[in-house]
Amino acid sequence: MISVEPTAAQSSTLDLQLREESERIGAEAHALVARLFPYCRSLTGDGVRETLQALRTVIPLEVHEVPTGTRAYDWVVPNEWNVRDAYVLDSCGQRVIDFRAHTLHVVGNSAQIDRRTSREELLAHVFTDPAHPDWIPYRHLYYRDGWGFCMRHRDLGQLDEPDYRVVIDSTLQKGSLTYGELVVRGTQSGMFLVSTHTCHPSLCNDNLSGIATTALIAREWIRHPRRHGARFVFAPATLGPLVWLSRNEPILPQIRAGIVVANVGDQGGPTYYRSRQDTAPVDRTIAHVFRHAASGNASIRPFAPVGYDQRQYCSPGFNLPIGCLQRTPNGEYPQYHSSGDNLDFVTAAALGDSWRLLSLALHVLDADATFINLFPKGEPRLGPHGLHAIAESLGLFWILNLSDGNHSLLDIAERSGLPFWRLLEGARRLEEAGLLQRQSGAGVPQKDRF
Amino acid sequence: MISVEPTAAQSSTLDLQLREESERIGAEAHALVARLFPYCRSLTGDGVRETLQALRTVIPLEVHEVPTGTRAYDWVVPNEWNVRDAYVLDSCGQRVIDFRAHTLHVVGNSAQIDRRTSREELLAHVFTDPAHPDWIPYRHLYYRDGWGFCMRHRDLGQLDEPDYRVVIDSTLQKGSLTYGELVVRGTQSGMFLVSTHTCHPSLCNDNLSGIATTALIAREWIRHPRRHGARFVFAPATLGPLVWLSRNEPILPQIRAGIVVANVGDQGGPTYYRSRQDTAPVDRTIAHVFRHAASGNASIRPFAPVGYDQRQYCSPGFNLPIGCLQRTPNGEYPQYHSSGDNLDFVTAAALGDSWRLLSLALHVLDADATFINLFPKGEPRLGPHGLHAIAESLGLFWILNLSDGNHSLLDIAERSGLPFWRLLEGARRLEEAGLLQRQSGAGVPQKDRF
Amino acid sequence: MISVEPTAAQSSTLDLQLREESERIGAEAHALVARLFPYCRSLTGDGVRETLQALRTVIPLEVHEVPTGTRAYDWVVPNEWNVRDAYVLDSCGQRVIDFRAHTLHVVGNSAQIDRRTSREELLAHVFTDPAHPDWIPYRHLYYRDGWGFCMRHRDLGQLDEPDYRVVIDSTLQKGSLTYGELVVRGTQSGMFLVSTHTCHPSLCNDNLSGIATTALIAREWIRHPRRHGARFVFAPATLGPLVWLSRNEPILPQIRAGIVVANVGDQGGPTYYRSRQDTAPVDRTIAHVFRHAASGNASIRPFAPVGYDQRQYCSPGFNLPIGCLQRTPNGEYPQYHSSGDNLDFVTAAALGDSWRLLSLALHVLDADATFINLFPKGEPRLGPHGLHAIAESLGLFWILNLSDGNHSLLDIAERSGLPFWRLLEGARRLEEAGLLQRQSGAGVPQKDRF
Repeated sequence: MISVEPTAAQSSTLDLQLREESERIGAEAHALVARLFPYCRSLTGDGVRETLQALRTVIPLEVHEVPTGTRAYDWVVPNEWNVRDAYVLDSCGQRVIDFRAHTLHVVGNSAQIDRRTSREELLAHVFTDPAHPDWIPYRHLYYRDGWGFCMRHRDLGQLDEPDYRVVIDSTLQKGSLTYGELVVRGTQSGMFLVSTHTCHPSLCNDNLSGIATTALIAREWIRHPRRHGARFVFAPATLGPLVWLSRNEPILPQIRAGIVVANVGDQGGPTYYRSRQDTAPVDRTIAHVFRHAASGNASIRPFAPVGYDQRQYCSPGFNLPIGCLQRTPNGEYPQYHSSGDNLDFVTAAALGDSWRLLSLALHVLDADATFINLFPKGEPRLGPHGLHAIAESLGLFWILNLSDGNHSLLDIAERSGLPFWRLLEGARRLEEAGLLQRQSGAGVPQKDRF
Repeated sequence: MISVEPTAAQSSTLDLQLREESERIGAEAHALVARLFPYCRSLTGDGVRETLQALRTVIPLEVHEVPTGTRAYDWVVPNEWNVRDAYVLDSCGQRVIDFRAHTLHVVGNSAQIDRRTSREELLAHVFTDPAHPDWIPYRHLYYRDGWGFCMRHRDLGQLDEPDYRVVIDSTLQKGSLTYGELVVRGTQSGMFLVSTHTCHPSLCNDNLSGIATTALIAREWIRHPRRHGARFVFAPATLGPLVWLSRNEPILPQIRAGIVVANVGDQGGPTYYRSRQDTAPVDRTIAHVFRHAASGNASIRPFAPVGYDQRQYCSPGFNLPIGCLQRTPNGEYPQYHSSGDNLDFVTAAALGDSWRLLSLALHVLDADATFINLFPKGEPRLGPHGLHAIAESLGLFWILNLSDGNHSLLDIAERSGLPFWRLLEGARRLEEAGLLQRQSGAGVPQKDRF
Repeated sequence: MISVEPTAAQSSTLDLQLREESERIGAEAHALVARLFPYCRSLTGDGVRETLQALRTVIPLEVHEVPTGTRAYDWVVPNEWNVRDAYVLDSCGQRVIDFRAHTLHVVGNSAQIDRRTSREELLAHVFTDPAHPDWIPYRHLYYRDGWGFCMRHRDLGQLDEPDYRVVIDSTLQKGSLTYGELVVRGTQSGMFLVSTHTCHPSLCNDNLSGIATTALIAREWIRHPRRHGARFVFAPATLGPLVWLSRNEPILPQIRAGIVVANVGDQGGPTYYRSRQDTAPVDRTIAHVFRHAASGNASIRPFAPVGYDQRQYCSPGFNLPIGCLQRTPNGEYPQYHSSGDNLDFVTAAALGDSWRLLSLALHVLDADATFINLFPKGEPRLGPHGLHAIAESLGLFWILNLSDGNHSLLDIAERSGLPFWRLLEGARRLEEAGLLQRQSGAGVPQKDRF
């Protein structure tokens, strides 16, 4: 009986219900972004640890430490980088560049330094963005040596003294890469993966928006368990997923769908990059959700080996059915990778809307199932079951017509043009009336089982 | 030799020939509609019997009576309803509503009644359509109890007396469901089904148009027998086809194509609803006929489990390749299910045009065959056979190029963009010249037969 | 190692390199057209022999003579036709029509004649084109008997004398059909076919353009041998390919791709007619080359059994993957089959551009291969190999992502939207870095080999 499914009872109003919740959740997500904003995240280091620790107030995240030197395919966990302070002092002892004012002022992974430099040498290590003179750009030196500072282009003129004292109080030494994971068991086989990167310092859309949204999705999954299990991964970009993959190869075949979450807090319309498989259930589901539930301009883009960690999940050795949800994609908004990507740039409404769409997609993926029409010859009479009045709105005739064992509810939703959540409620009503039966072994036509 | 086929000799001019005949046939169809108009058809009863009896002047229809209580899948044949008279008398004994003036005045399946009612009680049983005050609406009470009258909204004000005598002289008792069927044998295996509903009272487009057009198609099939057999079914909607299906399951696998005919007398362009199979030969054929032979705006719509009896034929337990031909579809013209759907609303020209398109489609379905090019290496010389001048107009090079055993004439018609009937004539000419050979077992590549 | 492939070293700049060469080659092609222009080519005869002999200064063409009476499927090699002179004399002994002024003045295959005719009889054998009064039309009497002259419509008024002496000094007797073929061996199995017709007299676009372009393509294939072999066929239309096919049936299965070349010297955009197979590698390759390398409006048309010798190659008994490259197709420019199709109508630039597109297409067909990513789990690090900077421009991540044994470079080019020649260079760089391995047995996934 579909009514034993945890969320099935509300399924017909699911879309509306999520719309209502999204306002509250959006505000909560924005507050979470604000709380995590000050930490100086990087590929490794305490900033990531502090971030994951803070998330543990929201979800019971398990934190993993992977030692420097650990191999992950073609990659190796590097030395851990931590920075306590970083600044440039003028002749009066004033900090003309100050890490304490903004984490972006120090180039990520900068080596320790404390000495006087000429103005020329300093400028050779200073990055600005003349096109956006009010914003501090974001730079790092991953897998390279060196040091550097970033600053607003319009402040560059203030560096008019002949020499400066440059201090970066950082360490780059054996330690570990830190990532967080939450594992939620399901009641049936198969699980979903939601993955977001954690290596960007005080930047909001890229990617505190993804961290906060993923955490709040995870919390719902715990509160309202679904049929499928789920894993929520918070890890530094590229290397993090590779480490996770290398440690989890045995469970990869269980992954039915996954979504990489990034840049989901700006006010642009939602964007989805398809998985390498192109027409995997996750790809079809997001397209369905965008069609029936997105407000504003939603767009679907083909897979490409660019962007975020779907690159790793979709590499040919894994080829997992994992796409990427964003709003305005990386590199397509001017604030990208600069201090313009701040707490004003991301909004509670956008965060809530992203949470809603992601929730809805995961719900569809979780609830999709194949049913069998028990009265396949002709249409059964609906009147005696009191179903006549709701037949059209819940797509009952569509469900009956296509429930031949070869069409799941998502298939029926796509062919009929009706939203999945209405068909799900319709299937529940038909099942209660004894006209429809859930196929044992979801997605596997019964006749193929012997 | 293709020339032994009954209609092949005229095939090149088939389209023109049908255009000429359609005028005469259209007038005949309209006269038949007029003749059948007065009978009070319903799900069961004498109105259907009288209709089928009248059709026997056109075709040797076999009439079947299926007793009350007979099961057909989830359905049961109900009591038979007959109405002799029905009226509402005012205090002067005048009939203010009178079944003899129009069969639509009585609600279908109304129970017997003869008593005085208050004006209020009467009005609670009277249906009008304020949006179309000049038309009597059509209502019935199938599978429910009760009684009622329908009238023009503009006449409602005349019911100004405090009470009325209400008389419905009807019976609802054990009897039978009546349907008609004509079976025409073919010279090879496989048959077609043409089905139309018979349960609407004095309404012309829905569905005397379908009844008349189907009868005249059937007559042609008898006069000019084709390769395939055909069955023409005249039965009340929903229950009729279900009864027919339940009694004919063994022969269903022989059905190669079928068309439900409804609303084919109005002046809108032709509309086709695809079968559930979506790309069955009948679906491709109608699309081809519309493309090459429809005058005006023709449209093709996807399958949906709504509308007429293709719902039953295409239910998953049967999934027959049966679509639905209409002009303006049910519910999309204001006269639908009202007295506005009268003898002026349907025209001889539209009926003739529907007959022509349906004839052409059935002809294509009947004549489609796969041929083998006997000179497959290079193009054979056409000059010595006197075929050079007609090569282009009859698509001879297309036929030769694609007649490799994997393409039927319809396949070739679709790929070349040429009308089927020209290719059919081309194939006949090539066969006469000894360049082409009909494959034994139409549609089955010879090489697959062993 | 991809670097052992003859042309791989230049592959990344191949498009640019061909653009540069095309100017010089175009001028050479135009000079070759001019040199071949005066010969009176026909289905058979010395004009074809002289043409092939002249081509032997460019490529070591083998010339084949096929005796009159030889069968080729439904066809037979006819008597050989040669014309030494042809003219019409007026009463003053002046040549009012003179074959020596233009080969088009005599109707092809005209029988010998030398007698006086009345003006009326002469006019019954004279062809003009009133729509283009300045051009001599092109006519022939293949497979028919008779004689005739062609002239400018505006000169018709000059034939004002009552009678004329008509002389055609021709022979039509046992001889042979002459065609040329160049066979170039490859280093692996599989070969390409390039075919062009040779039967048109002094006409430039149709088809000296094809003859000259094909000869210069063939010369490059000898100078820079490729992996695949190639055959270049110069033969009279229809009958020539049929004779060639009838003598080469055993090698036909080796033909991987082929192109019929015609009308490639006018200034219209390039046009390609797909092969009967529709999506053969040659069809996909030309579409790819047009998309990424055509200047101006390129168009792709579906296969149709009309036009040039792809009709024979694509007949169902062969069904070879052979399409047709033209610029403005036959019959779509007013100069077609008239003296307007002269040395001014074809340009060096257009000939060079056609040579370039054809070269590029054959290069893609020759070089396409399937590689295996040796680091399929996650993306390998490109930085240590110095490949980071070129990763995007050479599509390295696309190559790595899709090189799973199921995608050739052309597949990857189509999905990524990147030009094949950049991916080819990318594959070479990745192979050098040890990240990629050419699959043994090009196009055959290794896992399927046992």
